[in-house]
Amino acid sequence: MIDATLLTNDLCRIRERSPLVHNITNYVVMNNTANALLAIGASPVMAHSVEEAAEMTGIASSLVINIGTLSNKWIKGMFLAGKAAKQKGIPVVLDPVGAGATAYRTDTCLALIKDFSPDIIRGNGSEIMALVNSNSQTRGVDSMSSSGSALESAIKLAQQTGAVVVVSGSTDYITDGKNVATVKQGAEMMTRVTGMGCTASALTGAFAAVNPDLFSASVHAMTTMGITGELAAQKAEGPGTLQLHFLDILYRLDGDTIAGQLNI
Amino acid sequence: MIDATLLTNDLCRIRERSPLVHNITNYVVMNNTANALLAIGASPVMAHSVEEAAEMTGIASSLVINIGTLSNKWIKGMFLAGKAAKQKGIPVVLDPVGAGATAYRTDTCLALIKDFSPDIIRGNGSEIMALVNSNSQTRGVDSMSSSGSALESAIKLAQQTGAVVVVSGSTDYITDGKNVATVKQGAEMMTRVTGMGCTASALTGAFAAVNPDLFSASVHAMTTMGITGELAAQKAEGPGTLQLHFLDILYRLDGDTIAGQLNI
Amino acid sequence: MIDATLLTNDLCRIRERSPLVHNITNYVVMNNTANALLAIGASPVMAHSVEEAAEMTGIASSLVINIGTLSNKWIKGMFLAGKAAKQKGIPVVLDPVGAGATAYRTDTCLALIKDFSPDIIRGNGSEIMALVNSNSQTRGVDSMSSSGSALESAIKLAQQTGAVVVVSGSTDYITDGKNVATVKQGAEMMTRVTGMGCTASALTGAFAAVNPDLFSASVHAMTTMGITGELAAQKAEGPGTLQLHFLDILYRLDGDTIAGQLNI
Repeated sequence: MIDATLLTNDLCRIRERSPLVHNITNYVVMNNTANALLAIGASPVMAHSVEEAAEMTGIASSLVINIGTLSNKWIKGMFLAGKAAKQKGIPVVLDPVGAGATAYRTDTCLALIKDFSPDIIRGNGSEIMALVNSNSQTRGVDSMSSSGSALESAIKLAQQTGAVVVVSGSTDYITDGKNVATVKQGAEMMTRVTGMGCTASALTGAFAAVNPDLFSASVHAMTTMGITGELAAQKAEGPGTLQLHFLDILYRLDGDTIAGQLNI
Repeated sequence: MIDATLLTNDLCRIRERSPLVHNITNYVVMNNTANALLAIGASPVMAHSVEEAAEMTGIASSLVINIGTLSNKWIKGMFLAGKAAKQKGIPVVLDPVGAGATAYRTDTCLALIKDFSPDIIRGNGSEIMALVNSNSQTRGVDSMSSSGSALESAIKLAQQTGAVVVVSGSTDYITDGKNVATVKQGAEMMTRVTGMGCTASALTGAFAAVNPDLFSASVHAMTTMGITGELAAQKAEGPGTLQLHFLDILYRLDGDTIAGQLNI
Repeated sequence: MIDATLLTNDLCRIRERSPLVHNITNYVVMNNTANALLAIGASPVMAHSVEEAAEMTGIASSLVINIGTLSNKWIKGMFLAGKAAKQKGIPVVLDPVGAGATAYRTDTCLALIKDFSPDIIRGNGSEIMALVNSNSQTRGVDSMSSSGSALESAIKLAQQTGAVVVVSGSTDYITDGKNVATVKQGAEMMTRVTGMGCTASALTGAFAAVNPDLFSASVHAMTTMGITGELAAQKAEGPGTLQLHFLDILYRLDGDTIAGQLNI
């Protein structure tokens, strides 16, 4: 299903074009996000204020909105940036961190989706389920839902919103509401490093900036995350060293490594 | 004094239950805090806004409030979360970063203590002294006070507030106003890594979430910090690699390592 | 041109005095900034609120203002801290991150410069050019300008503002409007780690805190950055490990290493 050559082509385009990815993201992972985008060859920029969020989006090639540490002022910047991205016609990725954990998070995500229709929504199972069904239970930022029902929710959310929906887990699902791709890469230890999901969303923004087929871009981003993560975990003695190896391996990732590591 | 078996029991409970620790903490260390909690086996969540701070505390097993990069909006979230924690009956840890350095910090800590009586207060000597005696001198976020007078202040603060008070330093003191435990673990190089004190407070939140004896939980948290830090420093070439080894070692920490490393 | 002995003398002074460097900086790099200052032997403190920014500057030995993730509340704190620094007579470093990328950033920098005349301004070529000529093009936070015209802009900015101006790039230029020093150290891979420029500004704050000759302090800071970065890059397998080696090497940097590594 996943074509190593097409993935490598996207990776080369990121490195050649170094697309500017505008991130309005959370305090916890900003550093990780910026470093992952730099390691893969993209250019990160962070700017959240209403005074400049739209203008910054105007010079970017994609926009990633992540609600991890939410507050009202930042939400205003998210709306303005989302609107600017749609006017410019660049792809928007939404990461609904902790949707379902509090009403504030769920409601904010639903309002953002309604307002500017993000092109890609990436979350874990409980977050995606919370966006479809506000009765689902989220426990903090971790997923408790079975991947089966998460996939059903993802398909429903894709159909409702028109977005490509990505559900992360030990198996990742990518769907446009009709087609479903599965990515079976990655390592258990990645769940013990903060912000791996946020990094996945940021890298999805980089791939979406160079590949107009957003379903394919999402599959390539999640496969890159998984391959890089499993190679990093093999070298790591724990979640501390995993983080660094992740960046080093992402920086050096090439077609041969991708082809050799791909689980078909 | 410190029982390796009881400490290991707490560690196993953290890994089994993966308690959700709600952190309202500072921008500098959020990433470290989240990673340390993940490495030990707990689940971190960060949410500071008045719109959701109380609701997030409502699904957590403990609350850690750290005033490192303070502003009025965040203080409001701290009050709401503290109140919610007390209503729910979960332990609250307060880290009075830089108390004494500015009136704003000292006053905020005193107001938080008065409002909801944190169960555990962990700081360095000068911070603890500042909370007892506003005439003491603090120099930024570093301690200049002798540990002798810091211990006296800690005992006094514990008696005044009913909290377990932890003073970090080359020797850590834990007191409930009556009993005093000392922890002599750790390494000098830890002082050259930002946020080690904040990590200690976060881990204290994890131990407090699984051990209702908060004096014992605090002793176990500080011992875990010290043992992990000294093992990390032995492997490290400097403060950069120390950080990673710290997370790796914390992730792998077991009863044998604890028993072998404990200074009695 | 660059004297290893004088640089080493500054480094020793930083380690002996451990100057408190007050940083009002961006969310992305706060952790890096604090760790770099700790690794070199200085004491970092971060405090941005109007309630305490001036008071915190009052106990510091230098002030570093970095506009990386700007918002109106933080700008107010920057003005208050800048004023307090000037009243106290301690050096102020301004890092105009992303100046030229949005009007908000350019205007804020120009207003800060007009208000309290920072002693040192450090940016990349496009940022420095944006502060002299608002018609120059900035692309996010990366430089696209030729170093030639950037140097001309730096000289002009130094003459206009009275500040020592530092332009970072593969070759760094330091100018007081009359004299120009060049630093040819560093490694390409440093551009793939976020916040290296911000770290340079923070270290400049540390050197300025112990060396009243701010031209010399800036040259020493940039040389230290470059030497540390190139040694780290030699040991690194990618941008992940580069970060750690950078801190380890900075922590251990001594006169012999500096003398041996200096490109004359």
